[in-house]
This record gives sequence, C-alpha cells and structure tokens, in this order.
Amino acid sequence: VPRVEYQPVRIASCQISLRVGEPDLNRAAAVAAVTEAASRGARIVVLPELTPSGYVFGDPAEALSLSEPADGPTAADWRNLAARHAIVIIGGFSELGEDGQLFNSAMLVDPSGVRAVYRKAHLWDAEADFFTPGDQPPPVIATSYGSIAMMICYDVEFPEWVRLPALARAELLAVPTNWPADVVPAGERPIVTANVQVAAFANRMFVAAACRCGDERGVGWTGGSVISGPDGYPVAGPASSSADAGGAQPELLLADCDLSLARNKSTSPRNDAHADRRPALYREATAD
Amino acid sequence: VPRVEYQPVRIASCQISLRVGEPDLNRAAAVAAVTEAASRGARIVVLPELTPSGYVFGDPAEALSLSEPADGPTAADWRNLAARHAIVIIGGFSELGEDGQLFNSAMLVDPSGVRAVYRKAHLWDAEADFFTPGDQPPPVIATSYGSIAMMICYDVEFPEWVRLPALARAELLAVPTNWPADVVPAGERPIVTANVQVAAFANRMFVAAACRCGDERGVGWTGGSVISGPDGYPVAGPASSSADAGGAQPELLLADCDLSLARNKSTSPRNDAHADRRPALYREATAD
Repeated sequence: VPRVEYQPVRIASCQISLRVGEPDLNRAAAVAAVTEAASRGARIVVLPELTPSGYVFGDPAEALSLSEPADGPTAADWRNLAARHAIVIIGGFSELGEDGQLFNSAMLVDPSGVRAVYRKAHLWDAEADFFTPGDQPPPVIATSYGSIAMMICYDVEFPEWVRLPALARAELLAVPTNWPADVVPAGERPIVTANVQVAAFANRMFVAAACRCGDERGVGWTGGSVISGPDGYPVAGPASSSADAGGAQPELLLADCDLSLARNKSTSPRNDAHADRRPALYREATAD
Repeated sequence: VPRVEYQPVRIASCQISLRVGEPDLNRAAAVAAVTEAASRGARIVVLPELTPSGYVFGDPAEALSLSEPADGPTAADWRNLAARHAIVIIGGFSELGEDGQLFNSAMLVDPSGVRAVYRKAHLWDAEADFFTPGDQPPPVIATSYGSIAMMICYDVEFPEWVRLPALARAELLAVPTNWPADVVPAGERPIVTANVQVAAFANRMFVAAACRCGDERGVGWTGGSVISGPDGYPVAGPASSSADAGGAQPELLLADCDLSLARNKSTSPRNDAHADRRPALYREATAD
C-alpha cells in the first residue's frame, strides 16, 4: 500500500441496462457509461457483473460463446478507456480460462492494462451449471487512486470473505453485481443494498456496488446500487430499485471519497474495528 | 435442538428508560416492561444491556457497587416473572464473578431458572475500565419456544461472532444493547439497526435487539431496537431512534415469529446460506 496521501477521488457506480447474448451492444453500453462517468470527473468506475455477456444463459454452449479470455475484447475496450481518461475500471465478465473452464470474473483495469482478475468464489443458483468457482481471495491492488479490491454479487453476503481484503488494507471494495429482483417490503431498502452498507461499516472501508437493470428472459434485477462510506451510510445512492414502483432504472452514481479515511479503523478512543477482533475465538466458525 | 415443530411465538423487544445508579428503579422498570409484554402475549422477552445497573459508571467502585452475581436479585425477579408467565427472558446485567471480576453479561431465564449466562467478548470504549472481556462463545439454549443465543451490543458488529451461534443452530439471537447515540444522516436508519438486520440476513435466523433510552451523564442512546426476520427485514420496529427528531423513546416491539423458519438456510433451489460458506478459504482472515 503506497503511503501517499490521496486526494478525494470521484467514484462512479454505473447501474446500466444489459442484454444477454448481445456482447457488442453490452460492450458499447459499458463504453458509453464509463465515458459519461469520466466526463463527469470519475476516476474509479464500477460496472456490473457479467457486463459483456449478460447473465441468464440458456445452456453451457451459450455461456461459452459469450465468454472471453482476460485479454479479450472487453479488456481492450477498458484499457483504452482507462488510458484515455486516466481512470481505473472494475467490471465483471464471463472469463474463458486457459484450460477452457469458465469463471464468473471481474477485472481491474488501469492505464497500464489489466492489473488483476478475480474469480467469483460463491456461485449463485444456476451459475454452477456454467462456471467453476474461484479459489483465490480477492487481490488488493494499489492504484494511483487508492487500494482497491473486488468481489462479485453473492460473494459479499459472506462477511468472512469481505474481511480478507479489508484486513489486507483495501480502502475500496468494488462489487460488480447482478442481484436478481426479490420482493422488498414496503418502505424498506433492498436487503442486498443494506448488506453492502454493513460490509463497509464492519470494516470501515468504502464499498461501491454496481447492479444492473433490463429484464432478461424473465429475470429482473434489484438495482439499488450504492456507494457506502466507511461509516456504513451511503455517499451516493441507493439507486432506483425493485423497492420502487418503477423498478431498477439506469443510473450513474457519483461520490467524492477520501479513500485514506478507510485506513483509520478507529471507532472510539479505545476501539478499532479490526484490532478488536478476537480471531482465536472465531476459529470454531471456520472449521470445516 | 429439539425437533418439535414450534408454533409461532410472540417475541418482545423492550426499549426502556433506565438510570445509572438506580438499580431498584431499573429492576422495577424491567419488571413492568416484561409484565406488559407478557400481558400482550409475548413468550420471549428481550431487555437491554446492563438493565439493572445502567451504563455510564463513574469509576470502578461504582461499577462494583452496581454489580451482582448471576443468582442475585435481578435473576430472582426474572425467574419469578418467567415462572408466572411461562416465558423466557433475556437481559443484560453487570455480573460480579465468583473471583470478584466484573463482566458485562446477559442471562437467559426461563421458568426453571437461569439457564445460561453469556459474558460480552468485545468491550466498547470505557467498558474496559470496569469489565473483563468474556472468552466463551454465546451458548445456544434449547427453550420451550425455540433455540436461543444471546450476545451484547458491540459483539454483533463482528460477523464472525454472529456466525458461531448461527452455525450452532440458534433460531433466535437476542441482543441486549446500549448503543450510544451517534449522528444519523437525514433519511437514514441507524447503521447499528441495519447491522442487526444483516446479521439475520447473513444467517437466515431471527435477531431481536433491545436498546434503551433515557440520557445518562451526558450520554444518549440510539434506540432503533428491532426484531428482524431471517430475510433481514424487520418484523417489528425499528423503534424510535436518534434518527428521529424526538430521539429514542420507550417502546415495546412485538412480533409473532415462526422460529422453525430459521432452520431452513436455503436461499435458492441451489443455495444455502451456511452450506455455501467456504471455510477453507476464510482461514486467513482468522489468523492472529
């Protein structure tokens, strides 16, 4: 982790509409969203899970046809955008691994190229028909704008998983997501949005989640994208969601964040969100 | 865990006013609150942290003077109430241990007497001047109304700690708490309340938190007591809180809960909130 003192950086979370099976259209939608975010001053831009491919695959052959290696056309798009605008982009894609396996992955791209690829470790529902789960913790990448980790959708529902990059000093956790729409009681915020806030609160780090919209083969999306500060309260969003009459709509969230705040885990004169952990007492919970 | 099929049980969370240094008054307030809850059909009643003593001790001598053993006058009150109304009571008290040490504890009392005592493992701020931290995980107690665990206030901000009783098949986590008042942004729910909801969501169990009100030596309280269902949405509350113009006020939350729902961790045809954990990958997070 570089010890430079960062200036506040504008973070964008792009809640965009995508269509399964339309990778050219989806890549263009991502380019448009990133370009718009950059033009509005964003230097870190988060895109949804499986941005180029869409989500609701019909069968493994379709999933394969919509997958690409980590140095494929999506990486090329994002590398060009990152270099042109001096930005960092985090987004999801269906990764074709060197061994032919598919992974539900995210990549972090900066002006120097693809800095890291993360493979989703907790697969949701039918994803297991298409993807191999990852088995490596989220890397923490030192960028010009701060230390950034990424995980994907269902991953963030496992607070033990969120802890790993937080303990490894991530200042921002970027979460590309495709939350399937679920019933949200009247007057409530989607629990998946609150879960992002609490992931930030428990670790006193920033968390930026980008969900999507656009119905796909009968599946709708929660939306409710949010950028949470380290106190757990939104600094941007929540975006429109299935809690609203109109459902999730395209929306660009922007927030100026001093990521260095996430280095300070102090929560009272005598407390520290990480130092107060009692790992020896937690061991039982992680036994197989 | 008994395999009987429970009927829905009415759970009460009592957000009550207390005063430090007035144990007789506070015990009477607790008796009144439990009696009211029982008269309205509650069979499980949750009281705040440090109910008889109050919270803001001036010095260790005062803390000692307001402490009592686990078979003291508070236990006698609650045992009598539990037997009279056939109920379960969970509440906090300042425990004088057999070795003279003080613990910030909670007890679970049913008609047979004190079933378990839990000692807070994560101490907040000046509590460390008065209390020895506990070093045992929250017990899970089979009661007539379901399997219940308890933890206290700051404990619940450590999701690894919440996991332990959840994995041990607690259906309800009772959380006596004294959340010091903090600034809540306009339009937001207190993050400590959202944290309780997410503790329930992450583990698909019920969580009932009882905070307090009544300013004490310059310290106010968040309030925002809540009973969360296993989907993370409130089934009662949130109670009035420091997010409201009037602050936290006395309030009795009541909810009819089918605790057997918490035995089902299934979240999709292919997912299970506990079975989907990948403990081998989490080990790093719990290394000292």
